[in-house]
Amino acid sequence: MPLPEKAFIERIRRRVRPGQHVVRGIGDDCAILRLPRGHEALVTTDFTLEGIHFRQEWHPADSVGHRCLARGLSDIAAMAGEPIAAFLSLAVPRHLSQRWIDSFFEGLLRLAKRHRATLAGGDVAESPSGVFTDIVVLGSVPAGTAVLRSGARPGDWIYVTGQLGESAAALEQLLSGRKKKLNPIAYSRHFYPQPRVELARLLRQKKIASAMIDISDGLSTDLAHICEESHVGAEIEAAAIPRARVGSDRRAVDLELALHGGEDYELLFTAPVAKRVPARIAGVPITRIGRILRRRGIRMLTANGTVEKTSPRGWEHLAR
Amino acid sequence: MPLPEKAFIERIRRRVRPGQHVVRGIGDDCAILRLPRGHEALVTTDFTLEGIHFRQEWHPADSVGHRCLARGLSDIAAMAGEPIAAFLSLAVPRHLSQRWIDSFFEGLLRLAKRHRATLAGGDVAESPSGVFTDIVVLGSVPAGTAVLRSGARPGDWIYVTGQLGESAAALEQLLSGRKKKLNPIAYSRHFYPQPRVELARLLRQKKIASAMIDISDGLSTDLAHICEESHVGAEIEAAAIPRARVGSDRRAVDLELALHGGEDYELLFTAPVAKRVPARIAGVPITRIGRILRRRGIRMLTANGTVEKTSPRGWEHLAR
Repeated sequence: MPLPEKAFIERIRRRVRPGQHVVRGIGDDCAILRLPRGHEALVTTDFTLEGIHFRQEWHPADSVGHRCLARGLSDIAAMAGEPIAAFLSLAVPRHLSQRWIDSFFEGLLRLAKRHRATLAGGDVAESPSGVFTDIVVLGSVPAGTAVLRSGARPGDWIYVTGQLGESAAALEQLLSGRKKKLNPIAYSRHFYPQPRVELARLLRQKKIASAMIDISDGLSTDLAHICEESHVGAEIEAAAIPRARVGSDRRAVDLELALHGGEDYELLFTAPVAKRVPARIAGVPITRIGRILRRRGIRMLTANGTVEKTSPRGWEHLAR
Repeated sequence: MPLPEKAFIERIRRRVRPGQHVVRGIGDDCAILRLPRGHEALVTTDFTLEGIHFRQEWHPADSVGHRCLARGLSDIAAMAGEPIAAFLSLAVPRHLSQRWIDSFFEGLLRLAKRHRATLAGGDVAESPSGVFTDIVVLGSVPAGTAVLRSGARPGDWIYVTGQLGESAAALEQLLSGRKKKLNPIAYSRHFYPQPRVELARLLRQKKIASAMIDISDGLSTDLAHICEESHVGAEIEAAAIPRARVGSDRRAVDLELALHGGEDYELLFTAPVAKRVPARIAGVPITRIGRILRRRGIRMLTANGTVEKTSPRGWEHLAR
């Protein structure tokens, strides 16, 4: 670490604002948190590893901090929960600049503030090489109201929020070597994804969703997770999948990227046919893309009227 | 990873038993946990990094798994809390054997079972080199009864549990190169430290401790943490510090190791003079080693009657 551990932690501690549910944050053996009455706790953990989830030459430090926390907040949104606190374990190489670390925290704490999540603890260590982070987000949800992956029933409609494929399109550009850097503003869903916490809260309050997951591994993979946990199958329509428009010409991304590309952090949910699902929730468009079937497997109706079997393609980040 | 991610997670999931407070464990975007009524949540996170906290040639895989979880459980004990669930983020290199990983989980899950903590989630990834783990332990404590670092008052006695220095003595042997391996049974406090969860629970129930911390960084450093958070000083007596007896001749470790050596995972606590503190709690001896003073700084009365200023010496694990 650029600073000794104690100075490092003090520097972070000074920047953190206390939170409503945080009885005790950084500075003891554990953080102490109070859950709202009648709520259950939600816990999620996510690695962000240099070389696998980001590269220093492609990703500004504040984007790395933002994306690190966004992964956790998106998991809380996927259960329709409320974020309370985050815990960051951070291992950095000795030569890393204090400026990089400060900017990393700036990105992380800015997003935390927007969602009223308090950085309440973590761990720091020196890594032999590369930046390794593990983010834990603790949230809460009124008891019994979390939306699980396992609630989809045959006949339910399938919906996605926002547009898909922008994050994968950005990575494709970078991996191809055609561009050395991308403008983070032009590909903001890759560099600064917005977890759909507010949208998910409204889905919970209106009791719309029967099952939900966030699209971190790609639509095909995450729909397969819902089908597996719910013991059902699905049919989706290729033409209905909302493809992100990227670059200076706002061209729609290829279907492959929208179908298999990960890290968009949109939500995929199912709802019974009888539920009225608004066209927009919390300012984000909602698109119906298919239906849950009793018969297992995922099939896709293509533009030319044929039916294809769709296999989940694991999203392997930068490791492709 | 030796197995694809999905198979890897399924293999872990099959070995985990459901827990009383775990509504939903591995298999969704978040785990869902129910806290006992009137309890607050405790959260702690700890890195365990190959080369810094362990070496594969010195530490059997089940010891690495055990120590990884012991670090988190010990933090819960330090707040006088009850463990509920653990979350493991694990990054392993591609060539690591499935046998090593299975043995790692055996050590971790054995300790989890003993303390009724359920492995309820986590993350897995491939690391470029070396094993990186981050353990999160979630616990609970009746609201307002957690024992903080900040509760020590001038006049309080200072106590430690068990004996100190065995873990550092083991590392000293290994680092010196005099021995290539140690018998884990002969140095069990290093290879299989027992977090003092039950002892801490009794301290809470009897309302004995005014402040508490676990000795993970070494007595001198951890006492300094208590003094800092409580805005007090301390005086300890060198002859009173309970030194571990190690090796075949059961020789007491050097005072330096007992004073500055970390990773014993004993507890350091303070108690008002009026409190009766038993000589043993939960089968573990309790030793009075000094007193909290109004005057800042830590001083030590030596065996020959002199007073020395004691500086906290950061415990740097294997990186020394």
